[in-house]
Amino acid sequence: MTETPRFLSDPFDDDKLKEECGIFGITGVAEAANFVALGLHALQHRGQEAGGIVSYDPEAGFQSARRFGYVRDNFTKASLMETLPGALSIGHVRYSTSGSKGNTAIRDVQPLFAEFAMGGCAIAHNGNLTNAEQLKAELIERGSIFQSSSDTECIIHLMARSIQSNIPERIKDALRRVEGAFSLVAMTRSKLIGVRDPRGVRPLMLAKIGDGYALASETCAFDIIGAEFMREIEPGEMVIITPDGIESFYPFEKTQSRFCIFEHVYFSRPDSVISGRSVYETRRQIGMELAREAPVDADLVCPVPDSGTPAAIGFSQESGIPYAMGIIRNSYMGRTFIEPTEHIRNMGVRLKLNVNRAIIKDKRVILVDDSVVRGTTSRKIKEMILDAGAKEVHFRIASPPTMWPCFYGVDTPAREQLLASTMSEEEMRVHLGVASLKFVSLDGLYRACGEDNGRNVLDPQYCDACFSGEYPVRPSDMIERGFQMRKSA
Amino acid sequence: MTETPRFLSDPFDDDKLKEECGIFGITGVAEAANFVALGLHALQHRGQEAGGIVSYDPEAGFQSARRFGYVRDNFTKASLMETLPGALSIGHVRYSTSGSKGNTAIRDVQPLFAEFAMGGCAIAHNGNLTNAEQLKAELIERGSIFQSSSDTECIIHLMARSIQSNIPERIKDALRRVEGAFSLVAMTRSKLIGVRDPRGVRPLMLAKIGDGYALASETCAFDIIGAEFMREIEPGEMVIITPDGIESFYPFEKTQSRFCIFEHVYFSRPDSVISGRSVYETRRQIGMELAREAPVDADLVCPVPDSGTPAAIGFSQESGIPYAMGIIRNSYMGRTFIEPTEHIRNMGVRLKLNVNRAIIKDKRVILVDDSVVRGTTSRKIKEMILDAGAKEVHFRIASPPTMWPCFYGVDTPAREQLLASTMSEEEMRVHLGVASLKFVSLDGLYRACGEDNGRNVLDPQYCDACFSGEYPVRPSDMIERGFQMRKSA
Amino acid sequence: MTETPRFLSDPFDDDKLKEECGIFGITGVAEAANFVALGLHALQHRGQEAGGIVSYDPEAGFQSARRFGYVRDNFTKASLMETLPGALSIGHVRYSTSGSKGNTAIRDVQPLFAEFAMGGCAIAHNGNLTNAEQLKAELIERGSIFQSSSDTECIIHLMARSIQSNIPERIKDALRRVEGAFSLVAMTRSKLIGVRDPRGVRPLMLAKIGDGYALASETCAFDIIGAEFMREIEPGEMVIITPDGIESFYPFEKTQSRFCIFEHVYFSRPDSVISGRSVYETRRQIGMELAREAPVDADLVCPVPDSGTPAAIGFSQESGIPYAMGIIRNSYMGRTFIEPTEHIRNMGVRLKLNVNRAIIKDKRVILVDDSVVRGTTSRKIKEMILDAGAKEVHFRIASPPTMWPCFYGVDTPAREQLLASTMSEEEMRVHLGVASLKFVSLDGLYRACGEDNGRNVLDPQYCDACFSGEYPVRPSDMIERGFQMRKSA
Amino acid sequence: MTETPRFLSDPFDDDKLKEECGIFGITGVAEAANFVALGLHALQHRGQEAGGIVSYDPEAGFQSARRFGYVRDNFTKASLMETLPGALSIGHVRYSTSGSKGNTAIRDVQPLFAEFAMGGCAIAHNGNLTNAEQLKAELIERGSIFQSSSDTECIIHLMARSIQSNIPERIKDALRRVEGAFSLVAMTRSKLIGVRDPRGVRPLMLAKIGDGYALASETCAFDIIGAEFMREIEPGEMVIITPDGIESFYPFEKTQSRFCIFEHVYFSRPDSVISGRSVYETRRQIGMELAREAPVDADLVCPVPDSGTPAAIGFSQESGIPYAMGIIRNSYMGRTFIEPTEHIRNMGVRLKLNVNRAIIKDKRVILVDDSVVRGTTSRKIKEMILDAGAKEVHFRIASPPTMWPCFYGVDTPAREQLLASTMSEEEMRVHLGVASLKFVSLDGLYRACGEDNGRNVLDPQYCDACFSGEYPVRPSDMIERGFQMRKSA
Repeated sequence: MTETPRFLSDPFDDDKLKEECGIFGITGVAEAANFVALGLHALQHRGQEAGGIVSYDPEAGFQSARRFGYVRDNFTKASLMETLPGALSIGHVRYSTSGSKGNTAIRDVQPLFAEFAMGGCAIAHNGNLTNAEQLKAELIERGSIFQSSSDTECIIHLMARSIQSNIPERIKDALRRVEGAFSLVAMTRSKLIGVRDPRGVRPLMLAKIGDGYALASETCAFDIIGAEFMREIEPGEMVIITPDGIESFYPFEKTQSRFCIFEHVYFSRPDSVISGRSVYETRRQIGMELAREAPVDADLVCPVPDSGTPAAIGFSQESGIPYAMGIIRNSYMGRTFIEPTEHIRNMGVRLKLNVNRAIIKDKRVILVDDSVVRGTTSRKIKEMILDAGAKEVHFRIASPPTMWPCFYGVDTPAREQLLASTMSEEEMRVHLGVASLKFVSLDGLYRACGEDNGRNVLDPQYCDACFSGEYPVRPSDMIERGFQMRKSA
Repeated sequence: MTETPRFLSDPFDDDKLKEECGIFGITGVAEAANFVALGLHALQHRGQEAGGIVSYDPEAGFQSARRFGYVRDNFTKASLMETLPGALSIGHVRYSTSGSKGNTAIRDVQPLFAEFAMGGCAIAHNGNLTNAEQLKAELIERGSIFQSSSDTECIIHLMARSIQSNIPERIKDALRRVEGAFSLVAMTRSKLIGVRDPRGVRPLMLAKIGDGYALASETCAFDIIGAEFMREIEPGEMVIITPDGIESFYPFEKTQSRFCIFEHVYFSRPDSVISGRSVYETRRQIGMELAREAPVDADLVCPVPDSGTPAAIGFSQESGIPYAMGIIRNSYMGRTFIEPTEHIRNMGVRLKLNVNRAIIKDKRVILVDDSVVRGTTSRKIKEMILDAGAKEVHFRIASPPTMWPCFYGVDTPAREQLLASTMSEEEMRVHLGVASLKFVSLDGLYRACGEDNGRNVLDPQYCDACFSGEYPVRPSDMIERGFQMRKSA
Repeated sequence: MTETPRFLSDPFDDDKLKEECGIFGITGVAEAANFVALGLHALQHRGQEAGGIVSYDPEAGFQSARRFGYVRDNFTKASLMETLPGALSIGHVRYSTSGSKGNTAIRDVQPLFAEFAMGGCAIAHNGNLTNAEQLKAELIERGSIFQSSSDTECIIHLMARSIQSNIPERIKDALRRVEGAFSLVAMTRSKLIGVRDPRGVRPLMLAKIGDGYALASETCAFDIIGAEFMREIEPGEMVIITPDGIESFYPFEKTQSRFCIFEHVYFSRPDSVISGRSVYETRRQIGMELAREAPVDADLVCPVPDSGTPAAIGFSQESGIPYAMGIIRNSYMGRTFIEPTEHIRNMGVRLKLNVNRAIIKDKRVILVDDSVVRGTTSRKIKEMILDAGAKEVHFRIASPPTMWPCFYGVDTPAREQLLASTMSEEEMRVHLGVASLKFVSLDGLYRACGEDNGRNVLDPQYCDACFSGEYPVRPSDMIERGFQMRKSA
Repeated sequence: MTETPRFLSDPFDDDKLKEECGIFGITGVAEAANFVALGLHALQHRGQEAGGIVSYDPEAGFQSARRFGYVRDNFTKASLMETLPGALSIGHVRYSTSGSKGNTAIRDVQPLFAEFAMGGCAIAHNGNLTNAEQLKAELIERGSIFQSSSDTECIIHLMARSIQSNIPERIKDALRRVEGAFSLVAMTRSKLIGVRDPRGVRPLMLAKIGDGYALASETCAFDIIGAEFMREIEPGEMVIITPDGIESFYPFEKTQSRFCIFEHVYFSRPDSVISGRSVYETRRQIGMELAREAPVDADLVCPVPDSGTPAAIGFSQESGIPYAMGIIRNSYMGRTFIEPTEHIRNMGVRLKLNVNRAIIKDKRVILVDDSVVRGTTSRKIKEMILDAGAKEVHFRIASPPTMWPCFYGVDTPAREQLLASTMSEEEMRVHLGVASLKFVSLDGLYRACGEDNGRNVLDPQYCDACFSGEYPVRPSDMIERGFQMRKSA
């Protein structure tokens, strides 16, 4: 049963994979919800459709606000923020899940909240549970009533069924039943809780601020509030934070860590730090790898803005070919186009990007982009560049061919819509209509991420399922629905 | 955990008891939700704060829309109604419950919906469960997660726990556990269901329309859609309606019927029919009873508009004193005053009512009102009438003194705020500052309702707890909270 | 050039003539705009589409706010009212003019404001200028730029062209050039000004409040703020009000007064007083005249609510036939239905009115209405009454047949759409399908208004052009557009 | 008299000069308003507060829509665009003028429209009239009524006073009376008109599209609609465009052209072309000039995004010091922060910019920005960079010191707020707290703009008043208000 949709999703598909969520939590600071709002603003790139904040104050109890739209448009108003008092608060930004196809109901917007006999608990989740459908069927059978279409609600109902007498133990009970990828931030009346799944597919970071602590998907969310980054929450770790300090637990069976390599390629912000490494620097290194793996004689190296920029800088520096802003991005785009006219819908990518004609004309241009998903945008950009009078266009892609869907919290098209799953590299080159097309190798990507020996084939250091088809967690629900795993995998 | 309040309740207290809900359901007609919208519009007097509609269509599944504000402002837009397809639909209008003090969250707006293993079910409820708090504590203990502050959600969770294999049986299971007053309209994918509690405190009516059927709180909702009134659902009866016809069940222990007598006095619309009797006619008869029980020499009989009008007409006809519109109501009032200025808040009743000075001046005026609750409005009206130059004011009230709160779905002030629970009739007369004050007797009220022998003291025909303090169903939750029943009761 | 329309006008035509405006002004009270808001709320029946308020404060200067919708929904918010400081303020409520067919732009909402070399001036106008089109053409020719489609703007531009050195003199200059019907309220930085056209077609009343004064279209607007009615502004009079007192001028040639008789029949509120007479009482007298002029044997006298009510009471009292509420009005109608669905649009009058079936059945019913314009609503009401089982329906109309359009500030259908201009009384009876149909005579109407000798044929006491076709002011613009005056007139 | 303000302006001052307007017009294409919307979207950087579009269609006449907010949020909705039919349309985007301090009323939003005896005319204006106040006083004296606070309305009233018999001639008459800087786009029922002031201070470009033509402030607005850039409208030129072709006139006395040099530095989009030169390329050249004029030994060249980027690329290329994205911009900022909390207001620049800590640490950093206005943002950025662990910060500014306000259509702080007007370069360096601070020389800037011999001191090729204090048009209104010109000028 769905409420009437209120927002169209962006009608100008920019052909990117979409990260589904960003999470943030903080304790031990006055007006904690203000810090959450700032943190979520810094994480907005991880989810632009909706956001929510829950806070707890001994007098006001648990308070919550959930809104469609940008953090900056909702969670900056004094009239709203005053309704979220207290020194403990968590928040969430999200894309719609692929399941609900862009029509999120407000009740699907996290954090989710539940009142248990021993008190309330709010949860915000980044990731995706691969056995949610099976769990849901079982829970309904036993009398649970689901209010949302979110997989996260399974965790809440598993907690309600637990016979443990406190909430942290109930969280452990619940998480031992779920499979998939999850980084969680949760709160009770007195505790801020963070958990990462045993493989650590999604990120979760810890920082100190004054006498308090903060958790966030990325370190850039600490910079905005002036918090000091301490360390990453480890794969399989659960931290329980109170004003008295941090307790650490490892409730799951130990297994090999498999962090999402696409966080390095595209999802994370370039000013975030992962595993002690600047994301910007990793991307610049990918560009240098590309320049070494796939050199070409040309006049200019131009990024497809903004995601191709660091790799283009690296490509230019390694190759010596001058870097130039050949494509200019319109800063006034957003996701709030509601019911655009047919005429405008047809404009597509030209609303966002314009070729810098005067500098492109008669040049051989290397275009650097972060990835090719369906290839729709790449074709249009190539046309714009040729229309502007470029002599040749060479595509250099800062990731391997994207051939497999992600089931761990990223919104991916079905396999048959992924260009690289249906065509060879040469077929893609012809399809895109460019002079040359090269992807960085999987080993090159691993090297740029600091794995000097490249990918460990027997036990890969990252989750790279979207490139390799090797899924570290079995996608049970999807297999139930008919998804075909890679034969050899 | 509450969302930010969106609407202030009416700042211009008109000192009336508030009916909490109106319900409507229909099956077997195309675009059923349109009929529900019309029915709810006709029932708007039973609940003005919010409304909701659920529909079912084999292709679209269950669809729902819930909105704050009037039916006419929300459920008439083509863009919204198109999202509610199908031939089966139910709806609800509501006041806020006294518990949540005017700040209803949208998740408290009915119909409630739940997905069970055997399919979905939506429920709309008029009444109040007197053991909801005890049930809720028990259900949470066993793992249920409550989403709303509505007592109706207990029914949903009791259904989820039932081991019956179909929804109607689960409804029966659930309703056998609840106490209090309830008229319910529910729907599954194929059935429209209506139930009344064993005492039939709240109304529920049945009508035929084309090949389909409708259920509504009052018959006026059938007139607006051209449906033909068939009969009342009986106390303790459950009807299951499909395109093939109506099945009737009596799942509860039989007990004496106790219909709410205040429906005759004030709640129901004057053009509705209850027990084969026009509500307008009953009210006119109350006025005639009053004229016989409490005659007075005067120049004019004036109603306090609009609820005192039929009784004033009866009083005039019985007494021979001319009827006149001595008080004029501003037709442009509503409940949507948002943040009125202090200045306007102080205007109070003068925004709604104005004395027709030219006809009142130098006259002895009988004012007929339906009831006195806190007496605040009565005092102001008396002042307005005297300011306008009336010689004398005589109040005649078309109900007995309101001395006890209602726990069966009506929003009543606490007992100590009810004028008649703290003062004698003479004290009230002095407090209101009028020449005379008389209430119709309880027997006179019963006679006007068609009980020629008046009230059966041993086994009253109606629920008249607000006048008598005799509660037909024990208000367990309230007693738990400290409410003192009448000693002798 | 029109802005996009924002509101549909009421899709449920109730077949009434529409008064176009209500005006209010006040000086010498703190927070004057609050009083204006209350006064406009009391005058809302004169114009429901939009409202505006201008205030002046020495520090803040002139401030203004104009809004679509009801006064109560806009001009009660503290956040808005705080932007309108000062002790001097005027306001206006309006229907759309017939010219712009329901699509008023916000710039057409009055008061209009202009900055002259000697200071600012705001004007609010009730009435219609019959030579506005000619004036406008002439002014444009000489370099004036019109911003609105309102005839009132002509007054502003005539003032701007005047060579007088103060605003009151410029107003006189301007008004000597216009023809038609006008009651004006205007303000400068220090003065509140009121003017009525030489024939006094539209009303304008004066009251005292504390040390200040107020002007309003009707006395009911004084009651709501507790002001004391002093007298009517006379036809052709101009008053200039300052804290020091009231100056009175007569800038126009003297002529016979011709107040609009339809104000008595329908436009004014029943609790207003005109010429020392209660409007309610006049309407009751019309009902008594009708009972004498057109008696009929029947069981019940029922008003068409709400405008037929006082006349129905009079008819019942004169005839001795019992008065009854045979038709019940839904209190929750408004004018804000936006884009109703086709289904709901077709419901028409049934959304507003419902027959009280139980008391109508098998009865001979006299229906009393205030007027018949196109007859569309009358037909539908008759059908509803017969459907409910009435034996006979007799229509009694509290005004003579409406045969001619009004050009003095009332929104009337074109002559060919007025039922009485194309049919005889008997033809109308057949068309409406009723047992009998009678209108009060023109003389009877005059008698009810206190003219004991009826209408003075040579020099009528009222403007009754809508009944008689005798237009006291030549409708020049309409004649230019092809309107045919009555031959003999 | 001002309406209540609806939008706060951006609370996060980024210390830039603000261009006040962008204009666009088109004729000879179906659904012309859609093209205008796209063109304005491409010109959004020239004015973000509000936008308006007027269209003409023989059946619908002139239609207009004006809205606060971004073009993409308003002028993309089918429901709005359908109200703007026709093949001829113009539009405008604007900042608020400094005069009205951020609180633009909707009536100040252009295009302005007026109905003259010979038909309607709409005008959109980029620039500022330096004698508007004198003209306005004179026009009011003669009977004109001003509706807006816009200087553009003077042009409309001067047109209304002209005795010419057609609109183009009236425009000429009017423009011969005004002084200052203006580029205009206007339309009648059949003509699209473009004019540039005699010195051509503001840009205006001409393009061909199908059988039609377009005018725009910048060439990037042609790219988005696929129009082909033809030429610039010349200083002092007026073009009248009909489906039959383009007529060109020179109604003003000939004078030396003085195009605004700040368009090259900051205002125009980098993908626009001015005088046959890519704006991006000019800015890259400025960076190269800077590297030659003010070299420094360092590890990284980082732009202050986004306006410093092209110059930083040029500096890096000329100096050989690696280019890096040391500061990352949050893409989700906008101008729609409404009532931010105090907490968030204090965050200031950190909401927009974050330092890429991992790559800045321990580095000597050259920061390249386009200009320094008040210096407030520069100080904050320097602090952020040092907090992140940079060893040294060197500022290089891609324009000379900004010492004088602009009176030709740019929103500049008062002279005493301009850092460079109160401090020497060394004082500024100390104030900003950086290791070194250098501005490009005025000659260097001219060279980068293609003037190989630098600035012609006797007759400068550009308007550079903001740097030199030499105003090509006397700012009469400002001098009247007390502005002191540079002594020697």
